[in-house]
Amino acid sequence: MVGGGQGAFIGGVHRIASRIDGKFDLVAGALSSNPERAAASAKELGIARSYSSYEEMAREEAAREDGIEAVAIVTPNHMHAGPAIAFLNAGINVICDKPLAATPEQAEEMAAAVKSSKARFILTHNYTGYPLIRQAREMVARGDLGKIRVIQASYSQDWLAEAPDPDNKQAEWRTDPAKAGGGAIGDIGSHAFNLLSFVSGLKTEALLAELHSMVDGRRVDDNAHILLRLEGGAKGMLWASQVAIGQENNLSLRIYGEKGGIEWNQENPNVMTFARFGEPKQLLTRGGAGLGSGGGDWTRIPPGHPEGYLEGFANLYSDAADLIRGEGDGSLLPGIDAGMDGMWFIASCIKSQDAGNTWITR
Amino acid sequence: MVGGGQGAFIGGVHRIASRIDGKFDLVAGALSSNPERAAASAKELGIARSYSSYEEMAREEAAREDGIEAVAIVTPNHMHAGPAIAFLNAGINVICDKPLAATPEQAEEMAAAVKSSKARFILTHNYTGYPLIRQAREMVARGDLGKIRVIQASYSQDWLAEAPDPDNKQAEWRTDPAKAGGGAIGDIGSHAFNLLSFVSGLKTEALLAELHSMVDGRRVDDNAHILLRLEGGAKGMLWASQVAIGQENNLSLRIYGEKGGIEWNQENPNVMTFARFGEPKQLLTRGGAGLGSGGGDWTRIPPGHPEGYLEGFANLYSDAADLIRGEGDGSLLPGIDAGMDGMWFIASCIKSQDAGNTWITR
Amino acid sequence: MVGGGQGAFIGGVHRIASRIDGKFDLVAGALSSNPERAAASAKELGIARSYSSYEEMAREEAAREDGIEAVAIVTPNHMHAGPAIAFLNAGINVICDKPLAATPEQAEEMAAAVKSSKARFILTHNYTGYPLIRQAREMVARGDLGKIRVIQASYSQDWLAEAPDPDNKQAEWRTDPAKAGGGAIGDIGSHAFNLLSFVSGLKTEALLAELHSMVDGRRVDDNAHILLRLEGGAKGMLWASQVAIGQENNLSLRIYGEKGGIEWNQENPNVMTFARFGEPKQLLTRGGAGLGSGGGDWTRIPPGHPEGYLEGFANLYSDAADLIRGEGDGSLLPGIDAGMDGMWFIASCIKSQDAGNTWITR
Amino acid sequence: MVGGGQGAFIGGVHRIASRIDGKFDLVAGALSSNPERAAASAKELGIARSYSSYEEMAREEAAREDGIEAVAIVTPNHMHAGPAIAFLNAGINVICDKPLAATPEQAEEMAAAVKSSKARFILTHNYTGYPLIRQAREMVARGDLGKIRVIQASYSQDWLAEAPDPDNKQAEWRTDPAKAGGGAIGDIGSHAFNLLSFVSGLKTEALLAELHSMVDGRRVDDNAHILLRLEGGAKGMLWASQVAIGQENNLSLRIYGEKGGIEWNQENPNVMTFARFGEPKQLLTRGGAGLGSGGGDWTRIPPGHPEGYLEGFANLYSDAADLIRGEGDGSLLPGIDAGMDGMWFIASCIKSQDAGNTWITR
Repeated sequence: MVGGGQGAFIGGVHRIASRIDGKFDLVAGALSSNPERAAASAKELGIARSYSSYEEMAREEAAREDGIEAVAIVTPNHMHAGPAIAFLNAGINVICDKPLAATPEQAEEMAAAVKSSKARFILTHNYTGYPLIRQAREMVARGDLGKIRVIQASYSQDWLAEAPDPDNKQAEWRTDPAKAGGGAIGDIGSHAFNLLSFVSGLKTEALLAELHSMVDGRRVDDNAHILLRLEGGAKGMLWASQVAIGQENNLSLRIYGEKGGIEWNQENPNVMTFARFGEPKQLLTRGGAGLGSGGGDWTRIPPGHPEGYLEGFANLYSDAADLIRGEGDGSLLPGIDAGMDGMWFIASCIKSQDAGNTWITR
Repeated sequence: MVGGGQGAFIGGVHRIASRIDGKFDLVAGALSSNPERAAASAKELGIARSYSSYEEMAREEAAREDGIEAVAIVTPNHMHAGPAIAFLNAGINVICDKPLAATPEQAEEMAAAVKSSKARFILTHNYTGYPLIRQAREMVARGDLGKIRVIQASYSQDWLAEAPDPDNKQAEWRTDPAKAGGGAIGDIGSHAFNLLSFVSGLKTEALLAELHSMVDGRRVDDNAHILLRLEGGAKGMLWASQVAIGQENNLSLRIYGEKGGIEWNQENPNVMTFARFGEPKQLLTRGGAGLGSGGGDWTRIPPGHPEGYLEGFANLYSDAADLIRGEGDGSLLPGIDAGMDGMWFIASCIKSQDAGNTWITR
Repeated sequence: MVGGGQGAFIGGVHRIASRIDGKFDLVAGALSSNPERAAASAKELGIARSYSSYEEMAREEAAREDGIEAVAIVTPNHMHAGPAIAFLNAGINVICDKPLAATPEQAEEMAAAVKSSKARFILTHNYTGYPLIRQAREMVARGDLGKIRVIQASYSQDWLAEAPDPDNKQAEWRTDPAKAGGGAIGDIGSHAFNLLSFVSGLKTEALLAELHSMVDGRRVDDNAHILLRLEGGAKGMLWASQVAIGQENNLSLRIYGEKGGIEWNQENPNVMTFARFGEPKQLLTRGGAGLGSGGGDWTRIPPGHPEGYLEGFANLYSDAADLIRGEGDGSLLPGIDAGMDGMWFIASCIKSQDAGNTWITR
Repeated sequence: MVGGGQGAFIGGVHRIASRIDGKFDLVAGALSSNPERAAASAKELGIARSYSSYEEMAREEAAREDGIEAVAIVTPNHMHAGPAIAFLNAGINVICDKPLAATPEQAEEMAAAVKSSKARFILTHNYTGYPLIRQAREMVARGDLGKIRVIQASYSQDWLAEAPDPDNKQAEWRTDPAKAGGGAIGDIGSHAFNLLSFVSGLKTEALLAELHSMVDGRRVDDNAHILLRLEGGAKGMLWASQVAIGQENNLSLRIYGEKGGIEWNQENPNVMTFARFGEPKQLLTRGGAGLGSGGGDWTRIPPGHPEGYLEGFANLYSDAADLIRGEGDGSLLPGIDAGMDGMWFIASCIKSQDAGNTWITR
């Protein structure tokens, strides 16, 4: 693991997600750019091999016979490219947090490194790991909804509704344009954009964005209103907000086609509604009755026993392990293409905003 | 009543809504532009004085000592202006269905007639009659939410997801541009727009709209994606759709301010959530515990005994009766201003669409 | 109308319910046992013929050529029998609030009067008027659920969680054993019992009840736990409470058979779930997609436009009017049999409680 | 681990739960009473030390310097006592699945072994591990609800609504009286009973049960209707069913006191409602706004990021590890007392049933 030392958030999530299915052991880390914190964090977590920099770690692990098979990169956005490229170049598989990078330049360099490396690159757009999201993707792909017409996606939170405590490390880098590369659009909007692309299977051809900074002194967007035009004529709306008081982590996706519609909400991810035109709406449940083959996969426990965020995240780790071992094709795993698509989304939002909220075509 | 003969929909709703509180008797009507159908409908409904045209009705009722005090106009959109102006000119109070008219020209003439008449003009944006919507308006006005930042409004249905039966009279005029003046934006979008204006108390200064006709051969929009800029810096999104399969009549409003947020959904209108930043979300119920003075008004039965669409509609009729009798100030009743605002909304959506989905400023 | 004068609750509900479909005019009343209040109430409501006693009213109305066709009795429970018998004997149809009476003796006398009269007797177990409840009954009857196994019914409120204000007229008689004939079991438990019988079509053969008075000084039950044995081997549980803090008017019914299950809740009565074994649960909506013939009846407005308590109540009035006019068979209307069944329920609960919470067989 | 070999269900759950917080390594096992399956299962799971019997495992592990610190017993109910006693006697901490045993005799022997051992005994009533359940317990304990009056608990499923496939190993032993010791009352009713005791802090003094076998040929109860009398005058109802078609794993708890009420449902365990009399109902969320100290503990991720069944289960493992290491007091962990209480519940239900559904006092 690179990053994820004391005071970090997403590193702990990756560690749990990697443990759930027992396919990973955490044996090495460069947990902080501060060598003392790196060492202290490694000790606290019982990690045997602690490095003071990711460069050292990539070099030494690649040289060991029992070196790591994969590295999880859980640093702030502007610190993804450096370690990702180093490990890819060293032939070590990379599991990287999203969004891909803080700048298009970093992203391009990462894409080049992926292309020239034999190692795998996986981007943890973790919400794609929810079983019902994969079920929805399968339903769209096999035509249950017919040709897609309308997509409504939103991701709303309220934790940045006021200026955060200056000691809040999470808030600090996420509201720094240089480190984050975007505000709500990068932190959560990119998730919603990825999710709608993943489920619909449609590429977005153009967008128009209005970005807002609702809190005094904020240097990034904390609310974004976005219109989308997708291939095949589908149209979308995407709302991302970190100032929607009363919302915790409300990622929601609704897709409507010529024959049917589906609706899903991350806060209760074990249920999805599905309606065919002129028929009663159905409640599909994770692993529950009446799902096709896709429904029963990627779950560990029977329907009615709720799985959550960590299990969805774990599905990415599990698939990654299978892919690395040659036991799976990884076809559902977001990789560099999803990452580049997300970078296009973020950059286009900013471009649209700077141009007076006009349409940006890919 | 003008309109509302056999085969009509909204006329029956107005008749029930006017009866619920016992403040109206239906005694006269020009129920159809077809004199035979007008007579047959009047007979069926037990209406004593049946007229074969609204002109005749306005003239004769104005002349009677026991003439009607108010007329309900429940014709298709392009047939509002004629009777409304006739009755206003005759000094008879008008209760008119929405949107105001099918064209800006008709709307201007109606506005002029309202201005020069001593009679009242009420536009039945019925969703403003729901007790919790009025509660929400009061909460916003007294600052419970702080300065408004974000408004998310949507109104989705699916009844036009396919080309309707040619015999469907409701669908016929609603999908004819000349009669309706707009598709989803006029039929339901105008309700959502009115509702967000009513609750927030904010005027929209600019909008950008993308209008879609998802069904082959449809001549009006059946799906619309709209961005709003409101006075004071608030931003909004509005989605209106008649092709969202699985949606019945899902008018939903969410408003977020600097201090709190509210969320409400028309399909279960007896509940509204309210969150103050950093406190647990509250479930406010119609007439229920903890509401201020506004909460208990405009309800007929105790909390937990659901009221619905007809009771909300009846609140407009009840307030209208009080206003006409001088027993209420009618301050919550939508009138010509709300109507003109809705016409601006519809016209601006079309203008934005025609100009390539660009911003239209008021 | 008999009863329903100033300060009453259910009288107003009956008046609205009778008006909604326009099949009744309220022309005469003995609105209070206090003649002055009766007169004042009648004047306030604009009722032409006001009587100072129900005896006088029954006699005089029966004698008039334009006398009333039906009387609504909306007095406290111990005051049902007198007027009901008087009007039945006078040949006037009776629409009576529930439960039937305050004592078994009163109930027997009423049953005898119904038997010997040519007039109709309707008991307003209003919750049977909800369209989805009638839909559920039809589904059970035609075997959609298979043989019924388990019924879970509950009706919970919290308005009596503390000793009420002494001026609360509603609470006063409802907590007086002589006037009410029972506490929660009569006021709300009898509704739940009626509803489960109505939908399942099954008679209860035995019950065991534990009745509680949770509030100091209360002389009737305010919470009741009841087990039911129904014909054909079905088993049930019934909970009635007026001290369940946070509950407003939560009448809920769940029925499970060999092939399927349904669940419905009065506070959002426009939705019902239906599950067949091994298939996804369906959301059935009032008047919505996929309902059989029963689904579309008894509704006034399209799906997604919520109807509520008053419309359900109005369905009883509407059916009663049709029955009286010979335009309907009244087969869904609760009558004297449902009333006597409810009296058996109340009496058996009390008997079971008095006998140490043992089983009481019919 | 003892039990949990190929084809088992709950063993896999324990393994994941023990891994989530990284406080356990699985190093030894007697995974099946069939030695070949035991070996094959251990190999599949990568467990180093595989034993062909629990006796051998207890003996040898106790003798090793690096022997296991704790054993998880995940066998069918009638196979709990043997290994539990063996490991307790060997001084090894025991984490045992529920219910305690299949017979009262087995339970008594286990209690004696716990008493005489210095090792810890933990019973995995896993639903007590949900953060909001622990929050509810804290709220009751500090008086937020006032004196408890009414408890409504239910646990409904439908997976046994028909006779199961003969190859269904889970169904086989769970419907065998000798192996399970009870049907729905033991498998799920005991969870509901434990949960209500845990949250309310109240002991049940008497109960009355009616047990049903709804499916032809079933030898244990698959539906149970139970009335409870708790200390201090509180009253309860408990419904357990495995034939409620449409229900997946619906464990629900509602508790009402003199001052307030709470409601929680396992299928969406991240939300709980809390109402104080006369105030709006609150939505409390796991780790969310406005919870006291208890609310933020035992969660790994921010509010809105759903945790589920496995994380709740993991909280028991985490607490057990802390207790064993002397880093926690284990005060929230169910142990032998909860187990004996559950055995009283099961035995009393059967006794009540056999005596004609009469009251059984403790």
